[in-house]
Amino acid sequence: MLRLTLLGTGAAGGVPLYGCECPACKRATEHPTFERKPCSAMVEWGNGSAKERLLIDAGLMDLHSRFPAETYHGFLLTHFHVDHVQGLFHLRWGTASPIPVWCPPDDQGCADLLKHSGCLNFLPTMTHGEPENINGLRVTPLQMAHSRPTFGYLLEYGVKNIAYLTDTDGLPENTLSFLSELPPLDALIVDCSFPPDHSGRNHNNINTVTQIYLDLAPKRLIITHLGHDLDAWLMEHGVPEWLEIGRDGMTV
Amino acid sequence: MLRLTLLGTGAAGGVPLYGCECPACKRATEHPTFERKPCSAMVEWGNGSAKERLLIDAGLMDLHSRFPAETYHGFLLTHFHVDHVQGLFHLRWGTASPIPVWCPPDDQGCADLLKHSGCLNFLPTMTHGEPENINGLRVTPLQMAHSRPTFGYLLEYGVKNIAYLTDTDGLPENTLSFLSELPPLDALIVDCSFPPDHSGRNHNNINTVTQIYLDLAPKRLIITHLGHDLDAWLMEHGVPEWLEIGRDGMTV
Repeated sequence: MLRLTLLGTGAAGGVPLYGCECPACKRATEHPTFERKPCSAMVEWGNGSAKERLLIDAGLMDLHSRFPAETYHGFLLTHFHVDHVQGLFHLRWGTASPIPVWCPPDDQGCADLLKHSGCLNFLPTMTHGEPENINGLRVTPLQMAHSRPTFGYLLEYGVKNIAYLTDTDGLPENTLSFLSELPPLDALIVDCSFPPDHSGRNHNNINTVTQIYLDLAPKRLIITHLGHDLDAWLMEHGVPEWLEIGRDGMTV
Repeated sequence: MLRLTLLGTGAAGGVPLYGCECPACKRATEHPTFERKPCSAMVEWGNGSAKERLLIDAGLMDLHSRFPAETYHGFLLTHFHVDHVQGLFHLRWGTASPIPVWCPPDDQGCADLLKHSGCLNFLPTMTHGEPENINGLRVTPLQMAHSRPTFGYLLEYGVKNIAYLTDTDGLPENTLSFLSELPPLDALIVDCSFPPDHSGRNHNNINTVTQIYLDLAPKRLIITHLGHDLDAWLMEHGVPEWLEIGRDGMTV
């Protein structure tokens, strides 16, 4: 068994955005099923025991109450932007057993998180393309194109594989060639923050995601890290048949 | 009317502390009335309109949902430690009208909060002992003894006054002499993180608070910013009659 649950599918600020009354934010206020919390996920494998469960990123503000100590094995961080780690600030002061944290090389960390790590055990940083075995799950970090050192992760268990690639603007050449040499991915979860032709940097828009789809031809492609502008655009436009819109709580 | 509501009365990590099973944390898990969220407060004056409401510190993780845009005037920050500002990371990306933020002089801020301030309007920093008039409320910043530049605040409206002094280890001489020259305070809300004789720095323990009570003789003294160790100690020991234990939701 290899299963990934999208815990949050929103860009920084989420949907609804604080104080915003655009159609997408209004809809999310009225119908919580359209809310988007900070982009994060849970991966489970094998028998799905606590040892076989990792949280990818930690931006959920209620992380400490949603995931009590000992109900998961540790964290895989994509990078240290605050919307991906803010749930750790409170939780770290706990007296729980040390919680392993895998992360990309970034000495800055976020605020005082590395200096006062509390019950978090930041492990030696991983290297692009070099897999680690975490309690039976094969995890390969892949370089992303972002303003801070950032890893996407290829997750493999048995014959199934899922790539989780966020935050990124396109894919760097080394990551593209690594993934191109694999058989088609069972599922690709990928950053798509903006409508087509949006000039925002550091994140994909619909056009860059289309190019990634053409390059890699995964069996399923699901977008995450959506901003409210993209949600508003999607309310007006259709999407191509190959593109699935991620939702908080969706399981892959 | 001058009213202060304690929104959170906990030290960093709160009570219950993540993964902890001490008597105080067990009690708070079983009876949410004993929970302590990150130390913060709301002050209301005059008619209590949205313009007459300030939030003191912003450590609540659900700040954005508890306080929608336009339901308060702005923030008074005591300092930039992450447990006092973490609720702003998510909220700042909103499209709300600029929200005024008063704070002590500290160019570092916290993570990228000052660099990417979004809808927050960080005002020119205040000066110890120099009052500002905020929509009729007289607010005087007072220097605290802490590891980062930190202000307590004297709040005055009509004939009533309340001092909110956290985070601090004792009181610096200039603050003590400023407050000593006033008539006795109606209420003093003060940092008390640790049991007596606890050697933790940067915060008061029961002994330092006793000294502050003897120095200032306020009409009421209420402790806030309690750690789980102090809560466990309080479950075993009585408190002197002059000392009130703050609770989340308590109104002064």
